Amino acid sequence: MAANTDAAPDAQVSAPARVSFQADPAGYRHWRLRCDGAVATLTMDVAEDGGLRDGYELKLNSYDLGVDIELYDAVQRLRFEHPEVRAVVITSAKDKVFCAGANIRMLAAAQHAWKVNFCKFTNETRNAIEDASSCSGQAYIAAVNGTASGGGYELALACSHIMLVDDRSAAVSLPEVPLLGVLPGTGGLTRLTDKRQVRRDLADCFCTRPEGIGGAKAVAWRLVDEAVPRTAWAQTVAARAAEFAARSHRPGGAAGVALVPLAKTRTDTSVGYRYVSARLHHEKGTAELVVAGPDEPAPDDRASIQDQGAAFWPLAVTRELDDLILDLRTNEPELGTWILRTEGDPGRVLSYDRLLLASRDDWLANEIIQYLKRALKRLDVTSRSLIALIEPGSCFAGSLLELALAADRSYMLAGVFEDDGQHAEPAVITVGEMNRGPLPMGNGLTRLHTRFCGDAAALAAAEKDAGRALQAGEAERLGLVTFAPDDIDWDDEVRIAVEERASFSPDALTGMEANIRFAGPETTETKIFGRLTAWQNWIFNRPGAAGPGGALRRFGTGQRPEFDSKRV
Amino acid sequence: MAANTDAAPDAQVSAPARVSFQADPAGYRHWRLRCDGAVATLTMDVAEDGGLRDGYELKLNSYDLGVDIELYDAVQRLRFEHPEVRAVVITSAKDKVFCAGANIRMLAAAQHAWKVNFCKFTNETRNAIEDASSCSGQAYIAAVNGTASGGGYELALACSHIMLVDDRSAAVSLPEVPLLGVLPGTGGLTRLTDKRQVRRDLADCFCTRPEGIGGAKAVAWRLVDEAVPRTAWAQTVAARAAEFAARSHRPGGAAGVALVPLAKTRTDTSVGYRYVSARLHHEKGTAELVVAGPDEPAPDDRASIQDQGAAFWPLAVTRELDDLILDLRTNEPELGTWILRTEGDPGRVLSYDRLLLASRDDWLANEIIQYLKRALKRLDVTSRSLIALIEPGSCFAGSLLELALAADRSYMLAGVFEDDGQHAEPAVITVGEMNRGPLPMGNGLTRLHTRFCGDAAALAAAEKDAGRALQAGEAERLGLVTFAPDDIDWDDEVRIAVEERASFSPDALTGMEANIRFAGPETTETKIFGRLTAWQNWIFNRPGAAGPGGALRRFGTGQRPEFDSKRV
Repeated sequence: MAANTDAAPDAQVSAPARVSFQADPAGYRHWRLRCDGAVATLTMDVAEDGGLRDGYELKLNSYDLGVDIELYDAVQRLRFEHPEVRAVVITSAKDKVFCAGANIRMLAAAQHAWKVNFCKFTNETRNAIEDASSCSGQAYIAAVNGTASGGGYELALACSHIMLVDDRSAAVSLPEVPLLGVLPGTGGLTRLTDKRQVRRDLADCFCTRPEGIGGAKAVAWRLVDEAVPRTAWAQTVAARAAEFAARSHRPGGAAGVALVPLAKTRTDTSVGYRYVSARLHHEKGTAELVVAGPDEPAPDDRASIQDQGAAFWPLAVTRELDDLILDLRTNEPELGTWILRTEGDPGRVLSYDRLLLASRDDWLANEIIQYLKRALKRLDVTSRSLIALIEPGSCFAGSLLELALAADRSYMLAGVFEDDGQHAEPAVITVGEMNRGPLPMGNGLTRLHTRFCGDAAALAAAEKDAGRALQAGEAERLGLVTFAPDDIDWDDEVRIAVEERASFSPDALTGMEANIRFAGPETTETKIFGRLTAWQNWIFNRPGAAGPGGALRRFGTGQRPEFDSKRV
Repeated sequence: MAANTDAAPDAQVSAPARVSFQADPAGYRHWRLRCDGAVATLTMDVAEDGGLRDGYELKLNSYDLGVDIELYDAVQRLRFEHPEVRAVVITSAKDKVFCAGANIRMLAAAQHAWKVNFCKFTNETRNAIEDASSCSGQAYIAAVNGTASGGGYELALACSHIMLVDDRSAAVSLPEVPLLGVLPGTGGLTRLTDKRQVRRDLADCFCTRPEGIGGAKAVAWRLVDEAVPRTAWAQTVAARAAEFAARSHRPGGAAGVALVPLAKTRTDTSVGYRYVSARLHHEKGTAELVVAGPDEPAPDDRASIQDQGAAFWPLAVTRELDDLILDLRTNEPELGTWILRTEGDPGRVLSYDRLLLASRDDWLANEIIQYLKRALKRLDVTSRSLIALIEPGSCFAGSLLELALAADRSYMLAGVFEDDGQHAEPAVITVGEMNRGPLPMGNGLTRLHTRFCGDAAALAAAEKDAGRALQAGEAERLGLVTFAPDDIDWDDEVRIAVEERASFSPDALTGMEANIRFAGPETTETKIFGRLTAWQNWIFNRPGAAGPGGALRRFGTGQRPEFDSKRV
């Protein structure tokens, strides 16, 4: 138990010890990762007594956050440490069970905020699986060698190909609605209709049939891609993996980059890494994040990326930012406002961007860009108010400008602070190539495009100035920052904005931000975090699901859940 | 008070008397409708003591469901009764106040289900305003002659053009987040960014500034289209209305069709109109709706549409269906499953469809088609399980086939009922032109397209058979119905489906249906009913908003609301 906590384990789910998101295959308790040439196999073998918290047993390959942290780690390592892997088979070591989904006792005992945060992370990990397939030539194959229920089937839905053993017993199912009174909220409802194009009425029947569907019917309803007799199972899985591997554009002969453990210092009031840090102000409800630019300009040659490996600034800073977001989201729910700052030389940031983009055909440069994209997407769906402060000495340029563009609002100092002897030059921001395509949001648009959604002239004007260092006045005129107060007004404006934020309803802010951040088109991804997640959050908060007589608590007791029969 | 209730008024908001959605301009208590040639003026003048329920006063042009029922009625009548009207000015009769939005005391006292249903109806009415502008050449102009807050500004956002009086006092605002702890949920957040293309960071600032924004800044931020000094107000509003009217394609010289009162019989267990009826089974939690086809084939000439007016079958049946949906949604929350049936001659239904489509360039034929479109859209966002039963004697053809396509699932009898002497012919369904474009869902696709979203071959196969009467086997093979049991299995299959539905969590069903029904693209409209509404429902259910110490209850008391500072 408590394998993934920084501090001593705590029996109360309601006051959990701090969760760590760092893992290592050698320490996995729930997964086995085996690489065999171009094909990797990720075998789920959840330790029943390995829950992140006490109070529940992870039977039948059910999972909690700790199980998913290992899965996330494996997906990341496969991309960076295993360039040779072109297909990943996810399967189960249990007899007759692929995966039973999220552990119900854990869900029933968890507080609302914990459930929602847990679902967000599991959603992000499933999106990362799809991202590996579409952006890194690492196709995931779900080898469903036993029943896959609920989150277990949703994990399969995130794969490019679903194989189901055809043995008259194995089935896929989404029993959340009939058995638990909640939704298949880890993308299930959205991927059924939008990814797998299951007809909506068949989806309706499937989602109300707790025993699920197997065999030929599962294929006919598009729930799986093929049903394979047990006698032909091993060879068919191997053949399919080989086929997907053969179609991959992932290059051969490259050496992986070891994702060495992050050097992290964590106290109650601070988080520190090599380039990223945060000060936590519990009394004010804020976290001040600082992302430091590189110490030197980027090397000239792409070989250095590989040579520097995990120490290469863009990779290092992305890993640190990613870990910090996860840490604060999970462990610091009361810090409702994150202040985003950068420190360093904008020119150096842009030199790294140029090196990465010039090397995009290199697998590693591509992986780093894709990873930064995913880390920034995490920020977009983070339920915290994000305020960027752009001050002298900062380096909001190119890839780091994305932090300001991801923020709910930004303040840029016009001129300098009079009493600042260190920084005599005003702050600048610079739009770069990284802002114009490689780092899209979940809606498929760049943050710049989303910002000027429907205003093509404003977008063109902002992009026209790419490469030029813009001071506050210009940045404000171009709509790239929200406000540009001067030294006299700065402290008051920023203080008031932050204090005001802390005085508002945290729930209303979460809902408001989740809407305003995603102008423009919706994709499967934004539908999952928008429509599906919002409905699930609502249901999680209703007595019929999470109340004392609700279906989550009553499950397995033999008692019928109590529902309010009124439709809302 | 209680102007719009069928039964005696009831002081308890929690157990309201039955609400009627029928209104008439002569009986309006809150609006004045004046038509002056091509321009109509809809003046909001809410009677403080005219609340639908007791317990709150409708001050400052704040509204409740009763106020919105009159607005909906006016929007409908303008389309049907006033073909000469090409521009509609919405303004206020109050001094310095345009509209203060939904009444807060009403919201604070209302049960969760009432709030959600109220918001759904107000959303539909604002969508109807946009629909009038885009589909009927009736442009709405918001003449905001005083402060427009919250739902008041959201009403303006639904208009094609927003004029704000520029007098240093009037402003537009969305104070829901800072003052009430809820969202601007009547489309506000979505229309800000997606319709008016307000930059997301400016939208963030605007939505946290309770005093709002007026004058030139409101124009610069795209919140309004123009700010007009009070001295030039009347003439500028008139000029703008004339300009919009001049651009309209609405034909001159036509006579309107009077929307005479519906002949409706309503008891605790039944609702009856001329063509539509429903039996209400409270013990089973179901409503059985029957829509009757026309008694005769359609007339040959388009002039008959005008001559028959409100008695013309497609208009009559649409009005009845629309009213029934609203009645059951509001007054019968415990009837969680609606069984949809039709009765009549499919050929006659198709003959009416043909007449309407052949007359689409006629304003009235167009209005009837658009109205049917809106009524069916109501069904799509209705939080009830919809099950279509297709039996011998039914007429699921063309426009009425949409009822089956809107259902969550459909059962079609293969063959006939052995003991049915009346209907010797098996049921058929017929895809018609009405299923191929004129009646899109909120996502912009036809129900047929949404059904086969991503499966172009299946869509083409279904459309290829347009005009042909399909028996159960063929309909099932083409994917047009869900199941096709025969006489032997019919009763059990249908009974089990209905009973099963009644046993599930009503909340989970609502969330599931809201997701599965909308495969494919999202539009402003589906974002409002999906993302925005789902977040609002979540917030409505949180203690910080609707709890005893929540912001809705504490508003105006001088006491600060109590928030859980944890972000979810």
